[in-house]
Amino acid sequence: MQITSEALERAIEELAKLPGTGRKSAQRIAIHLLKQPEEQVKKLADSLVQLKESVMRCSVCGTITDQDPCTICSNFKRKNGVICVVEDFQDVYIIEKTNEFLGRYHVLGGTISPLENVGPDNLRIKELLDRIANEDEVVEEIILALNPDAEGEATSYYINKLLANYDVKVTRIAYGI
Amino acid sequence: MQITSEALERAIEELAKLPGTGRKSAQRIAIHLLKQPEEQVKKLADSLVQLKESVMRCSVCGTITDQDPCTICSNFKRKNGVICVVEDFQDVYIIEKTNEFLGRYHVLGGTISPLENVGPDNLRIKELLDRIANEDEVVEEIILALNPDAEGEATSYYINKLLANYDVKVTRIAYGI
Repeated sequence: MQITSEALERAIEELAKLPGTGRKSAQRIAIHLLKQPEEQVKKLADSLVQLKESVMRCSVCGTITDQDPCTICSNFKRKNGVICVVEDFQDVYIIEKTNEFLGRYHVLGGTISPLENVGPDNLRIKELLDRIANEDEVVEEIILALNPDAEGEATSYYINKLLANYDVKVTRIAYGI
Repeated sequence: MQITSEALERAIEELAKLPGTGRKSAQRIAIHLLKQPEEQVKKLADSLVQLKESVMRCSVCGTITDQDPCTICSNFKRKNGVICVVEDFQDVYIIEKTNEFLGRYHVLGGTISPLENVGPDNLRIKELLDRIANEDEVVEEIILALNPDAEGEATSYYINKLLANYDVKVTRIAYGI
């Protein structure tokens, strides 16, 4: 087989590395892009570069953001004093979509998992305690919204025990069916 | 719902425009890219920009290429004098994959389709006749490899009639089951 365009081959190769995209879909996408106006393809490429260049972690809650603190932490209309603790920034997305929660978040960045060598020190637990200790935020309630799997349960238990030393109400959200 | 990263939103929006990629897959891809090293994401973005910037049509056969003439037209090891006529550059890919054809190609860029306002003048038929008339290439055989649908058949018939005026053998490839 003779390849007439190395540029097309390279694009297919890179696209095929994306999750859920095999070589055939990568080929279809590359050929689709070949037929699009240059401006459109540049917009896509720029958006991917921007994704890496401008997205960072909020120094307060740890979710992903383009500005620090994030739009939730810096929004004065959000309810102060109620913090929903989640595993990942994707959980913030999921909860925000429901439009039901009006407080603030705290992203742990994972759950305690001895098998994967993730201990409490690898998570943003200290940052959570600092937020509670810091009198600016006047935290009254912590909602633990971790996944109901073994790691999530262990992490909830661990945080719950730590929070017994603080004057905050700790609740958990109901999950599942 | 409060969006904490406009950059992530934009990337998801652009990715969701790709064929076969809904908003959910776009989200999955964007989050995957967020976790990749910057270098890897730049490689992907660059490959897409390069796709538009360096890919052109071969002035001889009309397939896509990074150099003109393409690697097939400029390969002296390919059999001279036998031209396989196809509809699209993707057909060149498909035939090349079989490693069975060692001649050269001619990409028409479509088929005659009155319904879609595509007439013979919109296709690279004149260029094919020029190649046959041009004595450099000494064309002996034309293989019509158009799709066996109504438009493909009509186009084959039309070209076949035109070629009756030239001293070339015209054959068709067998398709299907």
